[in-house]
Amino acid sequence: MTLLPSDRALVPFVSVQHMMGLVHEIGIEKMLLDLATEIEGDFRRWESFDKTPRVASHSPVGVIELMPTSDGQMYGFKYVNGHPKNTREGLQTVTAFGLLADVETGYPKLLTEMTLLTALRTAATSAMAARHLAPEQSRCMAMIGNGAQAEFQCLAFKAVCGIDTVRLYDIDPVATRKAARNLQDSGLTVITCKSSQEAIEGAQIITTCTADKQYATILTDNMIGSGVHINAIGGDCPGKTELHRDILMRSDIFVEYPPQTRVEGEIQQLDPDHPTTELWQVITGQKPGRRDGRQITLFDSVGFAIEDFSALRYIHRAIQGTDLYVELDLLADPDDPRDLFGMLGRARP
Amino acid sequence: MTLLPSDRALVPFVSVQHMMGLVHEIGIEKMLLDLATEIEGDFRRWESFDKTPRVASHSPVGVIELMPTSDGQMYGFKYVNGHPKNTREGLQTVTAFGLLADVETGYPKLLTEMTLLTALRTAATSAMAARHLAPEQSRCMAMIGNGAQAEFQCLAFKAVCGIDTVRLYDIDPVATRKAARNLQDSGLTVITCKSSQEAIEGAQIITTCTADKQYATILTDNMIGSGVHINAIGGDCPGKTELHRDILMRSDIFVEYPPQTRVEGEIQQLDPDHPTTELWQVITGQKPGRRDGRQITLFDSVGFAIEDFSALRYIHRAIQGTDLYVELDLLADPDDPRDLFGMLGRARP
Repeated sequence: MTLLPSDRALVPFVSVQHMMGLVHEIGIEKMLLDLATEIEGDFRRWESFDKTPRVASHSPVGVIELMPTSDGQMYGFKYVNGHPKNTREGLQTVTAFGLLADVETGYPKLLTEMTLLTALRTAATSAMAARHLAPEQSRCMAMIGNGAQAEFQCLAFKAVCGIDTVRLYDIDPVATRKAARNLQDSGLTVITCKSSQEAIEGAQIITTCTADKQYATILTDNMIGSGVHINAIGGDCPGKTELHRDILMRSDIFVEYPPQTRVEGEIQQLDPDHPTTELWQVITGQKPGRRDGRQITLFDSVGFAIEDFSALRYIHRAIQGTDLYVELDLLADPDDPRDLFGMLGRARP
Repeated sequence: MTLLPSDRALVPFVSVQHMMGLVHEIGIEKMLLDLATEIEGDFRRWESFDKTPRVASHSPVGVIELMPTSDGQMYGFKYVNGHPKNTREGLQTVTAFGLLADVETGYPKLLTEMTLLTALRTAATSAMAARHLAPEQSRCMAMIGNGAQAEFQCLAFKAVCGIDTVRLYDIDPVATRKAARNLQDSGLTVITCKSSQEAIEGAQIITTCTADKQYATILTDNMIGSGVHINAIGGDCPGKTELHRDILMRSDIFVEYPPQTRVEGEIQQLDPDHPTTELWQVITGQKPGRRDGRQITLFDSVGFAIEDFSALRYIHRAIQGTDLYVELDLLADPDDPRDLFGMLGRARP
């Protein structure tokens, strides 16, 4: 009689240390490219997924969310919190972990940290969307908000869209210096700016990623010229937006999953029937993306469960044959499945 | 500079082995009693919880569910699958794990196996409900369905309600023999029976816990005399019931959370406005439980997130000062919360 759990009871677990090891083993730019491809592939088969808005538990200081989805073969979900006040206490605004499971048996197949992985998949999604929406030959991006997500965004746009210059701005110059330092050996030309206005000069792509839970106005209408692509990723929960309403009115707006974006995205400022285009329909060719050089395109991104699903499946594949995970004894799996109690009895010291 | 994760990044993890160790350290009957007290306490303050029906992802062969809740201080959720066909493949019908987090920061505080813990909390909930609903001086329980949950139910009713005799029946006699063997040193008088009819003879409490996903009829109307308490825990998803509708019509029905039970419980067979009583209101004294000796009381239990929340909080407390957990590097927690990328950079091999 063995007291060791059977293989079926073991779930591979990728810790933060292991995830960092995996990023370095694969190379961050290749991983961002791979993730963009993986996510685009799942957007292309959007209709095969169970979709539901995230399940949110709000409190006065933040939100805890579960984001499940399934394609009928695999099931994935992410746990993620959003607590803007956390940074003031030395904690992350966003932490996350996720799980992939087999729909056929319900047994988990992977548990992984997703704080890093969320930063990677968000950046990959942004850049993948820009590949369909930004002006051709975009080379310069304004990066407004230089917090935890900023460098990942910059590298994804380099790897996926061919951006060679980033113009950084944050209301806190310390954050801008941090991002510039982190990007100094990236191959990007990095320009630090003293205002949003300065940051967007000459940029074909404007990424906004600021974190305060309030109706903010990072960009006002008079700042935005024609022809740019705006990648708005910071407005992602009720009461949190970044762009002036007038910019939205001049833009063609692309979203992930409308029932979620209407509540959480920039478009919470607009009428519920304001026209938007679902990104997956652009990717499949059902709807046009960018039509001309003067159009302002806006990707109103709030993050959707399918992006996490793609990332989870990618990690599950990527760790095979590596030592970048450990096996967790997460599931009870007695030899006789009806004899859970007997398994407990045999474990008596 | 250290590459070790900070304490804040570490989440205590209770494996199946550790959970079994904890059960033996505390003693299973004491743990069932403790859990019944813990769960009853939370039912007593039912109105302080965020309540939502579980978030289910159905497939032709089973279901994967997330069950979140929060009391404003702590947040908990359980991942649980239900795949009745799994036993035929040597797998568990139900496996589960759960997480407790701090609402103030969104940071997880405990990750634990919940396959065993769910069996324990389900049994504790059943017995706690029976303490309010079963005839006084109940000593004999029929246990119909002798699968993975059966022994836990029997021991909970012994510890919490003073049951001294159990009468076991399962359509598969192998399951009955397994349960009888597991209970032989429990202090319970164990009687194995050849039919449901035989099992319920002389029983004041009837527990049904069978697993097939179908409209089954474990008990028919003519079998049930007056004055019994029925603890129906096997009918717990759409299309899965155990009792004949006529029994329901003769019973006073008590439920956990009506919006969920209407869909998943025995009462899915009844009109949506058929009267039921919420168990928490019996516990607080707002509604009567058992009124007389002839009444048939029925606890139509499907399992609710608050029961898992109580169990998670209990385990979180119980492991303090023990070595029955390990710390998982689940969260990224850089020294500067805005410098996630820098943390990654410093981990370069």
